[in-house]
Amino acid sequence: MLKIALIGVGTVGAAVAEILKTNGALIAARAGKELRVVKGVVKNLNRKRPDFDFPLVADYREVIDDPQVDIVVELIGGTDQAFEIVKAALKSKKAVVTANKALLAYHRYELEELARGVPFAYEASVAGGIPIIRALRDGLGANHIESIRGVINGTSNYMLTRMFEKRVSFDQALKEAQGLGYAEADPTFDVGGFDAAHKLLILASLAYGVDAKPEDILIEGIGHLTDEDIAFAEEFGYTIKSLAIAKKQGGKVSLRVHPAFISRRDIIAKVDGVMNGVSLTGDMTGETFYYGAGAGGKATASSVVADLIAIARGETSPMLGFRRVSENRLAVAGKTEIESKYYIRVLVEDVAGVLAQTAAILARRDISIETVLQRKKRVRKEWANLLLSTHKAKETDLIEALREIGALGFVKSPPVMLRIES
Amino acid sequence: MLKIALIGVGTVGAAVAEILKTNGALIAARAGKELRVVKGVVKNLNRKRPDFDFPLVADYREVIDDPQVDIVVELIGGTDQAFEIVKAALKSKKAVVTANKALLAYHRYELEELARGVPFAYEASVAGGIPIIRALRDGLGANHIESIRGVINGTSNYMLTRMFEKRVSFDQALKEAQGLGYAEADPTFDVGGFDAAHKLLILASLAYGVDAKPEDILIEGIGHLTDEDIAFAEEFGYTIKSLAIAKKQGGKVSLRVHPAFISRRDIIAKVDGVMNGVSLTGDMTGETFYYGAGAGGKATASSVVADLIAIARGETSPMLGFRRVSENRLAVAGKTEIESKYYIRVLVEDVAGVLAQTAAILARRDISIETVLQRKKRVRKEWANLLLSTHKAKETDLIEALREIGALGFVKSPPVMLRIES
Repeated sequence: MLKIALIGVGTVGAAVAEILKTNGALIAARAGKELRVVKGVVKNLNRKRPDFDFPLVADYREVIDDPQVDIVVELIGGTDQAFEIVKAALKSKKAVVTANKALLAYHRYELEELARGVPFAYEASVAGGIPIIRALRDGLGANHIESIRGVINGTSNYMLTRMFEKRVSFDQALKEAQGLGYAEADPTFDVGGFDAAHKLLILASLAYGVDAKPEDILIEGIGHLTDEDIAFAEEFGYTIKSLAIAKKQGGKVSLRVHPAFISRRDIIAKVDGVMNGVSLTGDMTGETFYYGAGAGGKATASSVVADLIAIARGETSPMLGFRRVSENRLAVAGKTEIESKYYIRVLVEDVAGVLAQTAAILARRDISIETVLQRKKRVRKEWANLLLSTHKAKETDLIEALREIGALGFVKSPPVMLRIES
Repeated sequence: MLKIALIGVGTVGAAVAEILKTNGALIAARAGKELRVVKGVVKNLNRKRPDFDFPLVADYREVIDDPQVDIVVELIGGTDQAFEIVKAALKSKKAVVTANKALLAYHRYELEELARGVPFAYEASVAGGIPIIRALRDGLGANHIESIRGVINGTSNYMLTRMFEKRVSFDQALKEAQGLGYAEADPTFDVGGFDAAHKLLILASLAYGVDAKPEDILIEGIGHLTDEDIAFAEEFGYTIKSLAIAKKQGGKVSLRVHPAFISRRDIIAKVDGVMNGVSLTGDMTGETFYYGAGAGGKATASSVVADLIAIARGETSPMLGFRRVSENRLAVAGKTEIESKYYIRVLVEDVAGVLAQTAAILARRDISIETVLQRKKRVRKEWANLLLSTHKAKETDLIEALREIGALGFVKSPPVMLRIES
C-alpha cells in the first residue's frame, strides 16, 4: 500500500480522495498496490467540509515528519508556501505530486535538482485531464519539437467562443464567465494570459529545456479585442484564439501568449468553450493534437491520480524529460524576435489618401498587404476602421510601421495589431 | 548503450534506424543511454536497399542467439512468423517492441504472460505517431473508460473525406487512394474494417481487459455507402466516418467497427483525409481526444523509438495496463446487442402508401422516426429512395423491421441501415 497525504483539500483535493475511493479497485489493479489517503492538511480546521475518512491537520510538518506518508500531494497553489512544503517533502525523500503551475513556472529547475532520485510528477499542472505531459515527455520523446500551440486557458477560450458565436462584447462575455464560475472576480490572471504563460513554460521545458520565467516572455491578454476584429476574422476564414506558443526558430525558441488569428480549418480552431487543446508538432510525427477538459475537480484529479499510479509502478521518466536538462537547453528568443503574418486595425478619419499613406508606410518596410477591409465606425459616421492583413513580416519592422501610422493626422487612436498564425 | 535488432527493414524499420541516427543525441539525453541498431534481419539479402551502418542477416535466430542484442524490434507484420520470433525473443529475455497490430489482436494475452518481467511495448501498433497507448494505459489510468471511438484507418477515412468533399463515388475514391499509395491493390483489409478492428481490440484490452478476437466482433466496411447517404448526412448536420467503437453497456462492452453518422460538431468529425483521431471518454475526465498521423514510416517509427526510450529508462507499466488482466476483464456484448439511433435507406417504387406502410412496421416495434427525406432515383424515374432516421432503438428490433420492410411489394432492394452515434 502507498500512503498519501493531501496538502489542500479543496475542490481538487476532495476529488482525488473521491476517485481513490470510487475507482479504488481499478486503480489498485493498474498500480499494483492500493493507494490510500492517510492525512489531509488544511489551513483552517474549523471550516465546514465534507466528511473524509482520513484525519485533517493544520500543520504540514505533521505530514513531512510522518514516516508513514509515502507521497505528498500538493494542491494549495501559489509559490511561497507550496515551494517550502514541496522542498521539505523531497528532502525527506517523499515522492511529490503537484497540480501547481505557478510553482513549476518559477521553480522547476530548483525542484528538478532536488527531485533526483525522488519521484516528482505534475501531469495536472497543464491542461487538467489531458495527459499532455506524458505525450510530450514520453510519447513524442523521439522528436525534436518544432512547435507547441495551446489553447490552455479555459476562461479566455470560453469568452472568445461567446464573442464569436453570439457576438457578445468582451465585458458581457466576462460577466457570463464570472456568473458560471469560469472567471474569478479579478480575471487578470486568466484573461491577461498569465495562467497560460505558466503552463507554456512547463511544456517548453519538456520540449526545449528552456529556463525562462513568466517575466521573460511576451504575454498579451484578450482585453483589446473588438467586434471589428471578430468580423474580419469571420470574413476571411479565421477564428481568434488565445494561443500559448513555443516555436523553434534558428537555434532559439520563441515563447509567447497572445490572441491570434488561426484558420478555421486548423484542428486547434475546434477547441471551443472551456475546453483545452494542445497541438505538438514533432520533426518525425508531424502535427499531433490533444483535447479535453482543462479544469474542474475530477478532470484535474484524474491527472493527479495518474501520477500516483505511475509512482506506484516505479516509473522513472526524468522529471523534465532529459537526464541532464542543462545540456539540452535552447535559448529563448527576444520578445520581439518574431516573424508572423499580421492583422492591423486602425481607426481613421474617412478622408482621401488614408489607404495610400498607410500602404506606403508598410511598403517602405517591406511589409506587403494581403487583404484590406474598411468598415464605418458606428459611433461617428465620418470615422472608419481600416482593417488589414499582411504577408509574413518581421515584428520589429511592423512595430515601427505602426508607430509611424499612429502619427498620421487622420489616425484617431493607436493602431492595434494581432498576429496571424499559419 | 542499448543494442537493438530490427526484424524487418522496410519503410518503418529504415525510419527507426534513421531517427536513431538523426535524433540520436536528443534520444540519448531523454533515454539516459545511447540506443544503437546493431543488426537487421531481412528475408532476402540480395534485394537492393539503402546503405545501413549495421549488418543484415537472413535468419532471425542470429538475433535471438546474439547475447549482444538487448531489444528486438519486430516490424515484419502478420501473425505466424512474427509470433514465433517474438516468443523466442521473450523467452531469451530480450525486450520486444512491435508495431504489429495483427499479432496483438490475436495473441496479446499469450504474449502478456510471456512478457512478465520482460519489457514488451507496442505504441506503434495503433494510430501511428499518436501516443494513444500511453494515454489510455497511463494518462487515463484513474478512469473507468466509458467509451472509445476511433477514426483509425487512414485509407477508409481518406476515401470518405473525398466522397464528402468532392462527392466522388466509392470506386473513384478507391482509385484515388490506390493512386496515392493510401490503399492496397486488394483494399479489403482497410475498407472492410478489419485493420481498424485489430487496433480496436488492442485499445479495448487496455480499457476493459477484453479477450475477444476479430471474429468475435461486428465489422462492417464502407463499400455500401452511396451518394444518397452522403446527401442525407449533409442535409441533417452529420458526417459519416468509419468508427471503431468500444462502449461500456451494463456490465459488458460493445465492440464494433462500422460506418456511422456523427454530428459535424463532434470533435472526431474533424479528422479528415488520412489522419487518425481517437476519442477516449473517462468517468472522471469526460471526453479526451487525440489526433495525428496514423501511418507513414517516420510517424510510426517515432512511436517505436518512444518505446525504446521507455525501455531504456526502465519503465514498468504492465503490458496491458493491469497487473492481473484476467481479474479485470469485462465480457463482450453480442454482435447485435446494440442500442442506437439509425439511418435507413430503402429503394422503393414511388407509389401511394409507401411511407405509411414503412412507418407502421417501425411503429409496431416501438421504433420512432426522427426525420424523413425522399429522393428520386436517377436511374429509373418511377423509383425513389426513402431515407429515414430513427430515435434510439434496439438493433434486434431494427433488423426485424428491416426484414419486414424488405418484403414489401414496392421495395426494390434490401434496405440499408447505418448507425447514428450520438
